[in-house]
Amino acid sequence: MMMMMTTAGRVAIVMGSLSDRSLVEPAHKTLTELGVGVEWHVMSAHRTPERVAAFVRGAEAAGIRLFIAAAGGAAHLAGAVAAHTTRPVIGLPLGRSLGGLDSLYATVQMPPGVPVATVAVDGAINAGLLAAQMLGLADEALAERVRARRVADQKKAEEADGELQKGLGGGKA
Amino acid sequence: MMMMMTTAGRVAIVMGSLSDRSLVEPAHKTLTELGVGVEWHVMSAHRTPERVAAFVRGAEAAGIRLFIAAAGGAAHLAGAVAAHTTRPVIGLPLGRSLGGLDSLYATVQMPPGVPVATVAVDGAINAGLLAAQMLGLADEALAERVRARRVADQKKAEEADGELQKGLGGGKA
Amino acid sequence: MMMMMTTAGRVAIVMGSLSDRSLVEPAHKTLTELGVGVEWHVMSAHRTPERVAAFVRGAEAAGIRLFIAAAGGAAHLAGAVAAHTTRPVIGLPLGRSLGGLDSLYATVQMPPGVPVATVAVDGAINAGLLAAQMLGLADEALAERVRARRVADQKKAEEADGELQKGLGGGKA
Amino acid sequence: MMMMMTTAGRVAIVMGSLSDRSLVEPAHKTLTELGVGVEWHVMSAHRTPERVAAFVRGAEAAGIRLFIAAAGGAAHLAGAVAAHTTRPVIGLPLGRSLGGLDSLYATVQMPPGVPVATVAVDGAINAGLLAAQMLGLADEALAERVRARRVADQKKAEEADGELQKGLGGGKA
Amino acid sequence: MMMMMTTAGRVAIVMGSLSDRSLVEPAHKTLTELGVGVEWHVMSAHRTPERVAAFVRGAEAAGIRLFIAAAGGAAHLAGAVAAHTTRPVIGLPLGRSLGGLDSLYATVQMPPGVPVATVAVDGAINAGLLAAQMLGLADEALAERVRARRVADQKKAEEADGELQKGLGGGKA
Amino acid sequence: MMMMMTTAGRVAIVMGSLSDRSLVEPAHKTLTELGVGVEWHVMSAHRTPERVAAFVRGAEAAGIRLFIAAAGGAAHLAGAVAAHTTRPVIGLPLGRSLGGLDSLYATVQMPPGVPVATVAVDGAINAGLLAAQMLGLADEALAERVRARRVADQKKAEEADGELQKGLGGGKA
Amino acid sequence: MMMMMTTAGRVAIVMGSLSDRSLVEPAHKTLTELGVGVEWHVMSAHRTPERVAAFVRGAEAAGIRLFIAAAGGAAHLAGAVAAHTTRPVIGLPLGRSLGGLDSLYATVQMPPGVPVATVAVDGAINAGLLAAQMLGLADEALAERVRARRVADQKKAEEADGELQKGLGGGKA
Amino acid sequence: MMMMMTTAGRVAIVMGSLSDRSLVEPAHKTLTELGVGVEWHVMSAHRTPERVAAFVRGAEAAGIRLFIAAAGGAAHLAGAVAAHTTRPVIGLPLGRSLGGLDSLYATVQMPPGVPVATVAVDGAINAGLLAAQMLGLADEALAERVRARRVADQKKAEEADGELQKGLGGGKA
Repeated sequence: MMMMMTTAGRVAIVMGSLSDRSLVEPAHKTLTELGVGVEWHVMSAHRTPERVAAFVRGAEAAGIRLFIAAAGGAAHLAGAVAAHTTRPVIGLPLGRSLGGLDSLYATVQMPPGVPVATVAVDGAINAGLLAAQMLGLADEALAERVRARRVADQKKAEEADGELQKGLGGGKA
Repeated sequence: MMMMMTTAGRVAIVMGSLSDRSLVEPAHKTLTELGVGVEWHVMSAHRTPERVAAFVRGAEAAGIRLFIAAAGGAAHLAGAVAAHTTRPVIGLPLGRSLGGLDSLYATVQMPPGVPVATVAVDGAINAGLLAAQMLGLADEALAERVRARRVADQKKAEEADGELQKGLGGGKA
Repeated sequence: MMMMMTTAGRVAIVMGSLSDRSLVEPAHKTLTELGVGVEWHVMSAHRTPERVAAFVRGAEAAGIRLFIAAAGGAAHLAGAVAAHTTRPVIGLPLGRSLGGLDSLYATVQMPPGVPVATVAVDGAINAGLLAAQMLGLADEALAERVRARRVADQKKAEEADGELQKGLGGGKA
Repeated sequence: MMMMMTTAGRVAIVMGSLSDRSLVEPAHKTLTELGVGVEWHVMSAHRTPERVAAFVRGAEAAGIRLFIAAAGGAAHLAGAVAAHTTRPVIGLPLGRSLGGLDSLYATVQMPPGVPVATVAVDGAINAGLLAAQMLGLADEALAERVRARRVADQKKAEEADGELQKGLGGGKA
Repeated sequence: MMMMMTTAGRVAIVMGSLSDRSLVEPAHKTLTELGVGVEWHVMSAHRTPERVAAFVRGAEAAGIRLFIAAAGGAAHLAGAVAAHTTRPVIGLPLGRSLGGLDSLYATVQMPPGVPVATVAVDGAINAGLLAAQMLGLADEALAERVRARRVADQKKAEEADGELQKGLGGGKA
Repeated sequence: MMMMMTTAGRVAIVMGSLSDRSLVEPAHKTLTELGVGVEWHVMSAHRTPERVAAFVRGAEAAGIRLFIAAAGGAAHLAGAVAAHTTRPVIGLPLGRSLGGLDSLYATVQMPPGVPVATVAVDGAINAGLLAAQMLGLADEALAERVRARRVADQKKAEEADGELQKGLGGGKA
Repeated sequence: MMMMMTTAGRVAIVMGSLSDRSLVEPAHKTLTELGVGVEWHVMSAHRTPERVAAFVRGAEAAGIRLFIAAAGGAAHLAGAVAAHTTRPVIGLPLGRSLGGLDSLYATVQMPPGVPVATVAVDGAINAGLLAAQMLGLADEALAERVRARRVADQKKAEEADGELQKGLGGGKA
Repeated sequence: MMMMMTTAGRVAIVMGSLSDRSLVEPAHKTLTELGVGVEWHVMSAHRTPERVAAFVRGAEAAGIRLFIAAAGGAAHLAGAVAAHTTRPVIGLPLGRSLGGLDSLYATVQMPPGVPVATVAVDGAINAGLLAAQMLGLADEALAERVRARRVADQKKAEEADGELQKGLGGGKA
C-alpha cells in the first residue's frame, strides 16, 4: 500500500484510553494508507463526557465527516459520540473482558434512532476500511483505492494458496 | 408498608423510554413506601444527551442525593448519568433483548473511576431498596424503616412456609 | 416524517427469506420517509449464491450506492454481499434462533478486508438510518433530513417525559 | 492522591480466600487514599458461615457503615453479608472461572428485598470508589474528595491525549 | 409407582419462595412414590438466613439425612444449606431468569470443601431420584425400588417406540 | 417433491423421546420425499443404553448405512450411536432447554476419533438432506434427486422475490 | 489430613483420557485422605462404550457403591455410567474447551430418570468430598471424618484472616 | 497408521487463511493415513468468492466427492462451499475469537436446504474421519480401514488405563 495525498474526507478516531493505542492503530494505518486524512484522540465517555460532546460538535464544524470510536467493557464511547452527531459513527469493540462480549453488546445494541456501525471485536482494520468505503460514496478516487486494496487482498489470498501447495510438498497426498 | 412523610434525602429515577414505566415502577413504589421523596423522568443517553447532562447537574444542585437509571439494550443511561456526577448511581438493567445480557453487561462493566451500582436484570424493587439503604447512611430514621421492611419480609417468608405445610396437607409424606 | 422526492443515492435491501419481510420493513420505511430511493429483494446466500453475486455486481452498475442485508441463523448474507462489492454493506442480524446470537456473530465477526457495518439484532430502523447517514456524506440535503429526524426524536423523548409526569399524577411522591 | 485523616465513616471489606488479596487490594487502597477508615478480612460464606453472620452483626455495632464483599465462582459472599444487614453491601465479582460470568450472575441476580450493589468483574477500584460515594452522602468533606479524584482522573485522561498526539508524531496523517 | 411405607431415611426439601412449589413438587412426589419420608419448607438464604442455619442444624439432629435445595436467580440456597452441614446437599437450579444460567452457575460452581450435587435446570424429578439413590447406599430395599423404577422407565421407553411405529403407520417409508 | 421408489441406501432415525416426534418428523419426510428408505425409533442413551447398542449393531447388519440421532438437553444419543458404529452419524440437537445450547454443545463437541456430523438446532430438514447427500456418494440417482431439490428450492427463492415485489406494490419507493 | 484405614465403602473414578489425570487426581487424593477405598480407570464413553458398560456392571457386583466420572467437551462419560447403574454417579466436568460450558451442560442437563450429581468445572476435590458425604450416610465413622475435615478447613480460613491482618500490617488503614 | 494406496474417493479441504494450516493439518493427515486422496487450498468466502464458486464447481467435475471447509470468526466458508454443491460439506469451526462460538454458530446454524455437517471447534481429526466415513459408504475397503482405526483407538484407550494403574502405583488406595 503506497501513501497518497490527503483527500477532502476526514475521519476522527477516538479511543477510551491511551492503553488502547496498539489495538486501534491498524484503523489509523489503514486510513493513512488509503490517503484519508485522520486524527485520533483519547477521550472517555465516562471520565470526560463534556470533552466528548464538545469535540464531536467541533469536529463536525471542522470538516470531520465520520467517527470511529473504540472502547472495551461497558463500551459507551461509540454511543456517546453518536448521541452528539448524525454523521456516521463506526463502533470498534475491544476485547478486554468477558471475551469481548460486553463491549460488543454495548456497542451494537443501540436503540432506534441512534445507529452505530459496529465491526468485529478488535477489528480495527475493518473499522478503517469501512470508514473509507463510506467516504468513497462522495469521493470516487478513494472508492477506487478501496477497490484496488480488495484486489491486492485477493492476490495475496491466491498467493497464500501457492505457498500452501509448495510449503508442504503440495496438497495432494 | 405504610406511607410516611417525605424525608430530606431525595432520589431521581431516569428511564430511557416511556415504555419502561411498568418495569421501573416498583422502584418508585418502594421508595415512596419508605417515605423517600422521589421524582422520575424519561430521558435518553442517546436521543437527548444534553438533557441528561443538564438534568444531572441541576438535580444535584436541587438536592437530589442519588440517581437510579433504568435502560435496556446497549444500556448506557446509568453510565451517562454517572459521567456527570460523583453521587451514587444505581443501574437497573432491563431485559428487553438478548435475555437481558446486553443491558446487564453495558451497565455493570464500567471502567475504573466511574462506578455504577448494578442490581439484577429487571430488579426494580432492589434498585429502590438500595437507594434507601444508601440514604439511610445519613438518615437513621430511614435506615430503621428499611430494617423494619426486612423484618416484615422475613415474617412473610415464614408465613409462606406455613401455607406450604397447610396448602398441600403438610409436607411430611 | 413527511415524504420527499427521491434523491440520487439509492439503496438495495436484500433479505434471506420472504418470511423476514415484517422484520425488515422498518428499514424500507425509514429510507422512504427520508426520501431515499430503495429497492428490496429476497435472495439467499445459500440457496441462490449466483443470484446474490450477479445482483450485487449489477446493482452497483445500476447506481446502487450501498446495501442492507438482513438474515438470521448462520447469517451469511451480509458477508456474501460484501464479498462482491467494496461499497458499504450494512448487516442486520435477525433474532430467529439462539436468541439472535448466531446471526449477530455471523454478521459482525468479519475477517480483515471485508467489513460489514452491523446494527442491533432486529434493528431495522437503524439499518435504514445508518444507510441514510452514509448517503448523507454525499448529499447534504439528505444529511439535513437525518438531522431533522433526530431533532424530532428528541422532541418525542421530551414529550414522553411530560406524559410520565401527568400520567401518574407527577413523578414526585 | 494524598493520605488524609480517617473519617467517621468506616468500611469492612471481606474476601472469600486469602488468594483473592491482590485482586481486592485496589479497593482497600482507593478507600485509604480517600481517607476512609477500612478494615479487611478473609471469611467464607461456605466454610465459615457463622463467622460471616457474627462478623456482620458485630461490625454494624462497631460502627461499620457498609460492606464490600469479593468472591469468585458461585460467589455467595456478598449475598450472605447482605442477608445479615440492611446496610449497603457492594458486591465485587472475581473472574476466576467461566470468564467471571458465574461470579457476576451469583452476585448481581439477588432476589427482591436483599439488594447487592454490584460492580464490574475484578472492578476493585470502583468497589472502593462506590463505597466512598455512599459514605459521602453523610460526609460532605469525603464527597468533596471523591469529586477531586474525578477531576484528577479527567486531567489524566486529557494528558493521555497529549501523549497520543506526541507519541506517534501527531494523530493527523 | 405404588406408595410404600416410610423408611428410616428422611429428606428435607427447601425452596426459596412459595411460588417455586410447582417446580419443586416433582421432587417431593418422586421421593414419596419411592417410600422415602420427606418434608419441605420455604426458607430463604437471603431473607431468613438464621432460619436456614437453625433449620439445617436441627434437621440433622432430627434424623434428616440429606437436603434438596431449590432456588432461582443468584441461587444461594443450596450453598447456604451446605455451609451448615456435611450431609449431602442436592442443588436444584430453577430457570426463572437469564434462561436459568444464573441459578445453574450459582448452584454448581461451589468452592473446594463445600460441594453441592447439582441436577439439571428445573430437574426436580432427578433431584428426588438422586436423593433416593444416595439413601439407597444405606437402605438396600430403597435401592431396589430405585432399580425397579429404572426398569419401569425402560419399559415405558420401549412402549414409546411401539407407539411411534403404530402412530404414524410404521416408521418404514 | 414427488414420491419415488425406495433405493438401496437406508437410514435409521433415533430420537430420545416420543415427545420429540414433531421436531424430528421433517427429517423423515425429507428422506421419504427423496426416495430414501427410512425407519425411526424411540430409544434413549440413558434409559435404554443396551437397546441403543444392540440396535446400532443390528441395524448395520440389516443394511442401515447411516444414522440420524435427535436429542435435547445433555444430548448424548448421537454420541452413543457413534460409539457403536463407524458408519456416519448425523446429530440433530433439539432446542428444549438453555436455548438449545446444551444439546448443541453435547452433540457437536465430540472427542477425536468419534465424529458426529451436527446440523443446526432443530434443523431436522437438513439432517434428512445431509443423509441423502451422503448416500448419494454411492447412489448417483439419489444424488441427482438431491440436486433437483436444490434447483426447486432456488426456484422458490426466486418466486419469493416476485411476491415481495408485488405484495407491497414493488420494492422501489 | 492423616491417612486412615480403608473402609468398606468403595468408589470408582473413571476418566475419559489419561491426559485428564492431573485434573482428576485431587478427587482420588481427597478420598484416600478420608480413608475411602478408591480405584480409578481410563475409559471412554465413545471409544470404549462396551468397556464402560461392562465395567459399571462388574463394579457394582464387586462392591463399588458409587462412581465419579470426569470428562471434557461433549462430556458423556457420567451419563454413560449413570445409564448402566442406579447407584449414585458424580459428574466432574473438565474445562478443556468453550471455557468448560460444553462439559458442564453435557454433564448436568440429564433427562428425568437418570440423574448425575454434578460438581463445579474442574472441581475434583468436591467430587471426592461429595462421594465421601454420600458413603457417610451408611458409615458414621466416615461421616465424622468428613465433619472433621470441614472443621479443619474452617480453621484454615480463620488462620488466613490472621495472615491477612499481619501480612499487610493490619487491615485497618 | 500405515500409508495406503490412494482410493477413488477424493476430498478437497479449503481453509480461509494460510495461518489456519496447523489447525487444519490433522484433517489432511487423517485422510492420508486412511489412504484417501486429498488436496487442500487456501481460499476465502469473503476475499475470493468467485474463486470459491469456480473451485467448487470445477472440483466436482474433477472427481472431488466431498469438501471440508475450515474457518474462524464469521465462518462462512463452509456455507459458501455448500451453496455451490449438493455434495456433502463438512464444516470445521476454528476457535480464533469469542472462544470459538462465533465460528461454531456461523458454521452449524445453516438454513433448511443447505446443510453443513459440523464437527467440534478445532476438531480437525474428526473432520477427516467423518469424510472417510462418508466415502466409506461407497468404498467398503475404506470403511474397513476406518473400522480398524477405531479398534486401534480402543486398544490405545485400554493401554492408557494400564499406564494409569502403573504410573501412580496402582489406582487402588
